[in-house]
Amino acid sequence: MFNAIVSAATLRDALDSVSVLVEECKIRLNEDDLSITAVDPANVGMVDLTLEAAAFESYEADGGVIGVNLNRLEEIAKMANADDLVHLELNEETRKLHIQIDTADSQLSYTLALIDPDSIRKEPDIPDLDLPASIVLEGAQLDRGIKAADMVSDHISLRVDEEEETFHIEAEGDTDDVDLTLTKADLISLSAGPANSLFSLDYLKDMNKAIPKDAEVTVDLGEEFPVKLHYSIAEGQGQVTYMLAPRIQSN
Amino acid sequence: MFNAIVSAATLRDALDSVSVLVEECKIRLNEDDLSITAVDPANVGMVDLTLEAAAFESYEADGGVIGVNLNRLEEIAKMANADDLVHLELNEETRKLHIQIDTADSQLSYTLALIDPDSIRKEPDIPDLDLPASIVLEGAQLDRGIKAADMVSDHISLRVDEEEETFHIEAEGDTDDVDLTLTKADLISLSAGPANSLFSLDYLKDMNKAIPKDAEVTVDLGEEFPVKLHYSIAEGQGQVTYMLAPRIQSN
Amino acid sequence: MFNAIVSAATLRDALDSVSVLVEECKIRLNEDDLSITAVDPANVGMVDLTLEAAAFESYEADGGVIGVNLNRLEEIAKMANADDLVHLELNEETRKLHIQIDTADSQLSYTLALIDPDSIRKEPDIPDLDLPASIVLEGAQLDRGIKAADMVSDHISLRVDEEEETFHIEAEGDTDDVDLTLTKADLISLSAGPANSLFSLDYLKDMNKAIPKDAEVTVDLGEEFPVKLHYSIAEGQGQVTYMLAPRIQSN
Repeated sequence: MFNAIVSAATLRDALDSVSVLVEECKIRLNEDDLSITAVDPANVGMVDLTLEAAAFESYEADGGVIGVNLNRLEEIAKMANADDLVHLELNEETRKLHIQIDTADSQLSYTLALIDPDSIRKEPDIPDLDLPASIVLEGAQLDRGIKAADMVSDHISLRVDEEEETFHIEAEGDTDDVDLTLTKADLISLSAGPANSLFSLDYLKDMNKAIPKDAEVTVDLGEEFPVKLHYSIAEGQGQVTYMLAPRIQSN
Repeated sequence: MFNAIVSAATLRDALDSVSVLVEECKIRLNEDDLSITAVDPANVGMVDLTLEAAAFESYEADGGVIGVNLNRLEEIAKMANADDLVHLELNEETRKLHIQIDTADSQLSYTLALIDPDSIRKEPDIPDLDLPASIVLEGAQLDRGIKAADMVSDHISLRVDEEEETFHIEAEGDTDDVDLTLTKADLISLSAGPANSLFSLDYLKDMNKAIPKDAEVTVDLGEEFPVKLHYSIAEGQGQVTYMLAPRIQSN
Repeated sequence: MFNAIVSAATLRDALDSVSVLVEECKIRLNEDDLSITAVDPANVGMVDLTLEAAAFESYEADGGVIGVNLNRLEEIAKMANADDLVHLELNEETRKLHIQIDTADSQLSYTLALIDPDSIRKEPDIPDLDLPASIVLEGAQLDRGIKAADMVSDHISLRVDEEEETFHIEAEGDTDDVDLTLTKADLISLSAGPANSLFSLDYLKDMNKAIPKDAEVTVDLGEEFPVKLHYSIAEGQGQVTYMLAPRIQSN
């Protein structure tokens, strides 16, 4: 059983955070929240999304799992205005999701065929890492660093200078280098520690697409360890965590 | 003889309504109005445009016919701002149309070579159908239904539910279905009758491009009959009618 | 030695004026100004840019010459907001240009590898022509004429009618003709003289891309002579001059 009503804006923010990594996913319709955990085909980037029942106008579920094509679901959500309410109801017999968007002067019904969850890649176990450094910054600052790195390289280094108490987003190209420096004063907060890891830029660019520019993003970082990126959606009633495996530093 | 002055916005609205179906057309320069009737190469979609003399700042004509390349004429009209006046004058000897756009600080003259009207596809006879149902809705509502149908199919069904007094824009895809329901309260007006016809979505998408989102569109409909779409331009002094042949329903 | 600070907007306007013609150029770091002179590979279009020391927040230079990839430098300048200050500093030893963009909440450093100036095409000698006609118009008027000409031809004619005291931007296509007429009243100023020359439209389109729509553009013109286009940037503390060789008129 699944029967829920949610604003189109919240639904879109939630779907966007997952669709940048995978095309299909399992959605867990838990009693108290809706959750998605997925890993990209190369097992490099993971996402963990939770949307609490309180993020919905109304929410009823009893623990089922459905498989969906995310692009298709996003396309439907885009037919709504941000304020429109989207009604989602699972038909257990037909295994179809009935989606209704009510606007001021129309009712749009969409019947979406679901995907067999068993045909979707297994959900990853997200490792519980205790990372030594933690940086909180604005989505716009992360975006600036990623765009700058993209001018010179396919890789990006995230690094904390413990002495200077600065966070660095860096890239080394064949001829040119780039370094975005964020001081403690520039950041929302910085908990310094030994942290310096290299990542594939493509994955960070994809994750960055979904992160709102005004989001507070927490970056947990270590030395040649995965990075964890965390931010809230749905006015704090939804949580997105990305985890990205490091590349081995060549020097 | 043809000598007329018209606002760029009115000229563009008029040309757009025809150019979505055909690239070349005959323009009839009647004494009391300018009119275009055209059918697409596959004989599926027709357009009938009338722009009354009152829609012009000044209008003089004596019943001639000219052939024009619509894309070219639209490109010229786009050089003007919406409020600019466009002066059109036919040179009978050279068979060229002299177009002048006066702006605040320039005079743009364009000499357009005309096309021999005999080389252009014959104008269609638009059948005078008495269709049992008539719906009046906003261009934006039609647009929403067409965009929704386009997510799942190449065909679109327009249907009136006489009992519920609702108008349905529907599409059936291989796995997914979509239905935009407009109640009598959602519509500007509904005159119910037996009406359910299937159409090629491509044609409706093209016609939809020309229909202003805030236009009042009258949809005349029957059972497996052509649909007539009608709206006004030039503050009521111009009329556009589209007619689209039905597809045979497969069930 | 080169150490300067300039607003991102001024830097971008300066670079744009050159990059429409060439990809690489020499920058002369003179004591009192920064200057670039370049000619396109076909030796048809030239540009001469001067940015006075007063256009910078601070400027120190001693006459060196550096070679740069303009596209790369523009890409970096685009990372800044219009009001951001860009700090440029030459490292004589590494032959790299250190670029720093300070925003409200980050410091972006970019280390740009320079190009050996000897590997860049020789700077042209810009001929000192005494042209008989001079027209001053708005960038937007020139833009309108160039766009109109582009509808019908690959060539564009610039002509002064001495008797009527009008300036004409004209093009003759295979079937259609276009003429943008600017009267003395439409222009900022007109000093009439014998002037009628034909140009390749591609070059003028490229130059037009860099000319701000609200710039006052001075057009110096003769009979089958090069045209000189001149405008100011950086609130008058920068000067751009284009020179374009004529095409031979076919009639």
